[in-house]
Amino acid sequence: MSYNTQKKQVIAVVGAGPGIGEAVARRFVKEGFAVALLARTEDKLRTMQQGIESDFGNGTARYYITDLRVEKDVISSFASIRSELGPVNVLVYNAGARRVNGRSILNTTTEEFENFTKINLHGAFWSSKCVLPDMLAAGKGTIIFTGATGSLRGSPGLSSFSPGKFGLRSLAQIITREYQSKGIHGAHIVIDGPVDGKLIGGVTRRKWEREGEKAKLEEADSFIMQPHDLAQVYWYLHTQPRSAWTQELDVRAQKESMFSKL
Amino acid sequence: MSYNTQKKQVIAVVGAGPGIGEAVARRFVKEGFAVALLARTEDKLRTMQQGIESDFGNGTARYYITDLRVEKDVISSFASIRSELGPVNVLVYNAGARRVNGRSILNTTTEEFENFTKINLHGAFWSSKCVLPDMLAAGKGTIIFTGATGSLRGSPGLSSFSPGKFGLRSLAQIITREYQSKGIHGAHIVIDGPVDGKLIGGVTRRKWEREGEKAKLEEADSFIMQPHDLAQVYWYLHTQPRSAWTQELDVRAQKESMFSKL
Amino acid sequence: MSYNTQKKQVIAVVGAGPGIGEAVARRFVKEGFAVALLARTEDKLRTMQQGIESDFGNGTARYYITDLRVEKDVISSFASIRSELGPVNVLVYNAGARRVNGRSILNTTTEEFENFTKINLHGAFWSSKCVLPDMLAAGKGTIIFTGATGSLRGSPGLSSFSPGKFGLRSLAQIITREYQSKGIHGAHIVIDGPVDGKLIGGVTRRKWEREGEKAKLEEADSFIMQPHDLAQVYWYLHTQPRSAWTQELDVRAQKESMFSKL
Amino acid sequence: MSYNTQKKQVIAVVGAGPGIGEAVARRFVKEGFAVALLARTEDKLRTMQQGIESDFGNGTARYYITDLRVEKDVISSFASIRSELGPVNVLVYNAGARRVNGRSILNTTTEEFENFTKINLHGAFWSSKCVLPDMLAAGKGTIIFTGATGSLRGSPGLSSFSPGKFGLRSLAQIITREYQSKGIHGAHIVIDGPVDGKLIGGVTRRKWEREGEKAKLEEADSFIMQPHDLAQVYWYLHTQPRSAWTQELDVRAQKESMFSKL
Repeated sequence: MSYNTQKKQVIAVVGAGPGIGEAVARRFVKEGFAVALLARTEDKLRTMQQGIESDFGNGTARYYITDLRVEKDVISSFASIRSELGPVNVLVYNAGARRVNGRSILNTTTEEFENFTKINLHGAFWSSKCVLPDMLAAGKGTIIFTGATGSLRGSPGLSSFSPGKFGLRSLAQIITREYQSKGIHGAHIVIDGPVDGKLIGGVTRRKWEREGEKAKLEEADSFIMQPHDLAQVYWYLHTQPRSAWTQELDVRAQKESMFSKL
Repeated sequence: MSYNTQKKQVIAVVGAGPGIGEAVARRFVKEGFAVALLARTEDKLRTMQQGIESDFGNGTARYYITDLRVEKDVISSFASIRSELGPVNVLVYNAGARRVNGRSILNTTTEEFENFTKINLHGAFWSSKCVLPDMLAAGKGTIIFTGATGSLRGSPGLSSFSPGKFGLRSLAQIITREYQSKGIHGAHIVIDGPVDGKLIGGVTRRKWEREGEKAKLEEADSFIMQPHDLAQVYWYLHTQPRSAWTQELDVRAQKESMFSKL
Repeated sequence: MSYNTQKKQVIAVVGAGPGIGEAVARRFVKEGFAVALLARTEDKLRTMQQGIESDFGNGTARYYITDLRVEKDVISSFASIRSELGPVNVLVYNAGARRVNGRSILNTTTEEFENFTKINLHGAFWSSKCVLPDMLAAGKGTIIFTGATGSLRGSPGLSSFSPGKFGLRSLAQIITREYQSKGIHGAHIVIDGPVDGKLIGGVTRRKWEREGEKAKLEEADSFIMQPHDLAQVYWYLHTQPRSAWTQELDVRAQKESMFSKL
Repeated sequence: MSYNTQKKQVIAVVGAGPGIGEAVARRFVKEGFAVALLARTEDKLRTMQQGIESDFGNGTARYYITDLRVEKDVISSFASIRSELGPVNVLVYNAGARRVNGRSILNTTTEEFENFTKINLHGAFWSSKCVLPDMLAAGKGTIIFTGATGSLRGSPGLSSFSPGKFGLRSLAQIITREYQSKGIHGAHIVIDGPVDGKLIGGVTRRKWEREGEKAKLEEADSFIMQPHDLAQVYWYLHTQPRSAWTQELDVRAQKESMFSKL
């Protein structure tokens, strides 16, 4: 049974957290899309979904509890999306698992390495396979992967993060080179630095709060990326005309030099 | 005497030709900017300037005959721009000199190597030095350099082109790293493939015309970049909010795989 | 019980096949090392081991049947190496799983994706963890990973290969940045093109044989990499003095332009 | 009149200073080469030449006073080398001009920008053109360019250095792609960090002396590159067999993480 009775275009946001994921969802819903939110924790998904529908109306958001490390979970969620909302027009793979404070290779467990790599890489492979057939049938579609500084540089402490993120970048290139001529726009966004939010930006902010760095806190917008500003990058890529498609771009806050290691 | 009596914002388009340069000029004028067009050939500049003012009204475009290989020419043009239009808010360095059919290093003359390198690199150094002081005083400004496939890869036949373009890319990075924290948004656009126009795209198109490749000609928009679509990339970069600035992105036509060597 | 009664230095060659792997083993044995050969197929391992001992004497080579996709297999093999040959001084991770004729993402199975990624990436993570403690205790050691063109570029047909190889490259960088200051030399060799051998080079050669390309076959050494020449690269990296260590280099045959896409 | 009566092979070291340049010269002379030393200051050249001949015998070194910014100077020196020593078999372009303490773009003069770019880039273009014809006639030859961290990354303060070094890297790639199939081995070495010597390493060392950092001084070899160790990299590249040629590699001291920005 289809919930998308108004035949809205559909975006699937995989790794839909309260930072970039939710902001991307809202950005596309604002333009008339229906959004499918995929993540593992029902509470957060429900809060996000209810918030979006509260702001934009019923029929704009549905959620799908998904363990991205498990192929059949991913397949099952996308099957539900297809039957409930219709074919996916835009896939944003935003899932990214990392430790805030990295450990050396010797202190990184196999469990962490495997879990993070599956979330950072395998889930994107499965998600892409789920949406590509409908996109190819339509002769168009957008697939955007969220990268990080660690997608380009193997830094200390990131042995459970960077391998998956490097791999994800290669997958974005392969999608572009295999399917761009058939109408699929594949792109990779390198988020170079901290994003304001509960996890990463919050740690930095809390550090400043502890250290009484008021001036820094006041101009946070200049040096911590804001999710709603990043969401605009995804929307921009989606709306590029066919004669000028971007495969990769980086993004950072204006005063990034305080953070970035690129 | 200032011609910019309405206090419009000012964009300087250096290397203002009938392809990307003119399209960028028109894109910004459409948003209310006054444009300074810099290039060497008065005829082309006048045609461009008259076309813009004819479409957008008087006071929207002025031209400055400039030999980009000559520092004092560059300085003099920017001094005139400053006194006639006011401080430059946006600098687009779009000049690029290359042979359509490259020659090997042994067949590349010193004259060509030096002339092209000056146009591809030195002119950007001088132009940036001319606009940075006003931008720093204002605490904001945008500087965008136009790159190419040859900015990332040294290909056969490009010995008079790639060195300057590689160098230009480094200069864009330096501008970002030296001045971004002071409000200057420096960016580098890698134009990966042919652009429709009199020079490069035209050659490809004429080849197809000679070879009777009608189907290819019909879907040209999918595989030759259109200047007005590229102009939108420059506008997008200029309007990015401070929390999410891009330093580099690539652009190509959807069916680029027919051309690109990246 | 230790078989390495002469206290030779020990190299572990993981992914010891009849191409690069065997050549590297022989190169180090020639310099007085004992070699541990790790791969999955006993027949091939035995042939290799017997050939090496036949040429260089008893006690120069032992083999360890290992499924690189299985952590406990890797751990068990390295435990045996340690007790039989002693601590590993040099680790060469040379395993690489790929299809000769790649398939698109949609035609790549999860089984292939997971198996290849484990061989290309996970096995290197586990192998490194096995050898690092002894290397750190000794204050020195060499870890070299074998990369490919597909480590730097995501090409069509390589969705089950490139993600692991990109990831492996990041892991090499992390090893360098985490442990170089403690005496560990981590390096990544980009093998850019076909290597003469049963698998890759052979396919090219057989194609030429079918097509009667005699001239090409005759000068094969100039355009297909020879395993014994590549082995020298590994030896060179291992013997670099501490003031001049290389983290990454590429290698290709002189006439590579016929093949390489880099 | 030829001074190379023993028909030694000839290496030209351009930018022959008391650091890498002299060490490379000595490394090749030790293997039986005659060396042509090119630089601007006669005193230094004479000291170097006399030192080499004192250690290795007469007929091993000659010097050629050359202003690398001036094409006819370069041409004239290579003409003298050709008539005095014979065709050049190996070209090492080692010249690099930079400020120890970089200045921002606004504080970088055109004179500095032009002079440094000519030394870092143009001189290599001219030198390559001088040696390529004899190399092509012989069907073999080696051309190695010395790069730096600033060849890959545009860092603050390097606007008069990085553009030329980026350009030099592109030129190395073009030489490889244009001439490798004809027997010319073109390569680029990224020297990532300080080299012990009068200029760069000395500054660091003197700083440590001032600060009483005795422990650091004692283990300097681990974290400042030694010229004689770097020279070995050049020799290694020159002696690589045709089936395994390297186009680019990086080098740094073991404890580079204290310095490198890559």
